[in-house]
Amino acid sequence: MAAPTTEALVDLLGMVAYGELSAFERMAADARLAPDLHRRAALSEMAAVEIANYGRLAARLTEIGADPDVAMTPYVGVVQAYHDSTEPKDWLEALTKAHVGDGVADDFFHEMAKLIEEPDRQLVLDVIHDKRYEEFAVTEIRAAIEADPKTRARLSMWARRLVGEVYSQATRVAGQRAALTTLIVTSGGDQAAVQALFRRITNAHSARMTALGLNN
Amino acid sequence: MAAPTTEALVDLLGMVAYGELSAFERMAADARLAPDLHRRAALSEMAAVEIANYGRLAARLTEIGADPDVAMTPYVGVVQAYHDSTEPKDWLEALTKAHVGDGVADDFFHEMAKLIEEPDRQLVLDVIHDKRYEEFAVTEIRAAIEADPKTRARLSMWARRLVGEVYSQATRVAGQRAALTTLIVTSGGDQAAVQALFRRITNAHSARMTALGLNN
Repeated sequence: MAAPTTEALVDLLGMVAYGELSAFERMAADARLAPDLHRRAALSEMAAVEIANYGRLAARLTEIGADPDVAMTPYVGVVQAYHDSTEPKDWLEALTKAHVGDGVADDFFHEMAKLIEEPDRQLVLDVIHDKRYEEFAVTEIRAAIEADPKTRARLSMWARRLVGEVYSQATRVAGQRAALTTLIVTSGGDQAAVQALFRRITNAHSARMTALGLNN
Repeated sequence: MAAPTTEALVDLLGMVAYGELSAFERMAADARLAPDLHRRAALSEMAAVEIANYGRLAARLTEIGADPDVAMTPYVGVVQAYHDSTEPKDWLEALTKAHVGDGVADDFFHEMAKLIEEPDRQLVLDVIHDKRYEEFAVTEIRAAIEADPKTRARLSMWARRLVGEVYSQATRVAGQRAALTTLIVTSGGDQAAVQALFRRITNAHSARMTALGLNN
């Protein structure tokens, strides 16, 4: 397995850091859509976990001699484009977006973590490991589908749109970040390994949809 | 000095808790107005402190047998009315709003803390004690005024509007929360003590304006 270049590592940590910062902002904004104070506070508290994770990644980037702002900058445009094209209309769309979109991103980061060395591997695994939000989202979405079965079709369609947007923005990133793309392509050793990586991500997405009670 | 009733204590802790939850939301939203990633992350990290404070207050309310959501509910409308009537147009207005508006609220909470017993007194003092944000806001606003002196008149006017709105919403709360109002009116012992309390709040506001380089 090829060791990642420093450039690829900075690219990766910058991407995860910006992912955490954006997740904080999105969850904090989505909390305003919550139907009651209890859920509003719960989501706000979960958002705070993301910003603490961001802090760890920014500190690590600084430690390896990189400027966190510079490392994150390449991802600002694509994440903005993603959010602009997938503005949730209500609480359930917001939860589905966070769960499905962040789910795919987390699975990708998990695969990438396997390609880097310690202590960065563990750091990336740590920041994607918070499952509290996942359980919260699944419970809310399943309850909503049970209360109104028409919700299933609407949210299934929404989730399909979301994941399509995630993939198209990811393709944009792949075209722009050569070091990162090289890391993925060379690390597995051959084409089959790379295909297997993407198959794992796709399968995890299908499993998540099923767990939500949504059609894939 | 009259000891506060449980009702007054729940009113007060509910108000401070909702203040923290709202401060989190507002700072998280304002972070999007930041001119660069560094400031955006800094404000987001400060927002996370507010939600941690919220958690302490909610836990204490639960401990004394109150439902945090019920205790916070009376303040949702006035805080919303305040935010609706004072929507910042840009980063500097957002910072001024947070610093001036939260400043007055914090001074009021500080005065109220004196009227309650331990451990609630220390809890209220703890959650208003974070000065990181204050220094950040003062530095940013002073630098902006130095860079463009016209900013002074604009932000001075804005701050006057803000504090007027704070006072009018506070008056609405005073009319609605009898236990809390009774605590303030009876605690000082006489009318002069109550007037002194409000004079301290007004003086602190003037000092804050001067520190910002704004006209009062």
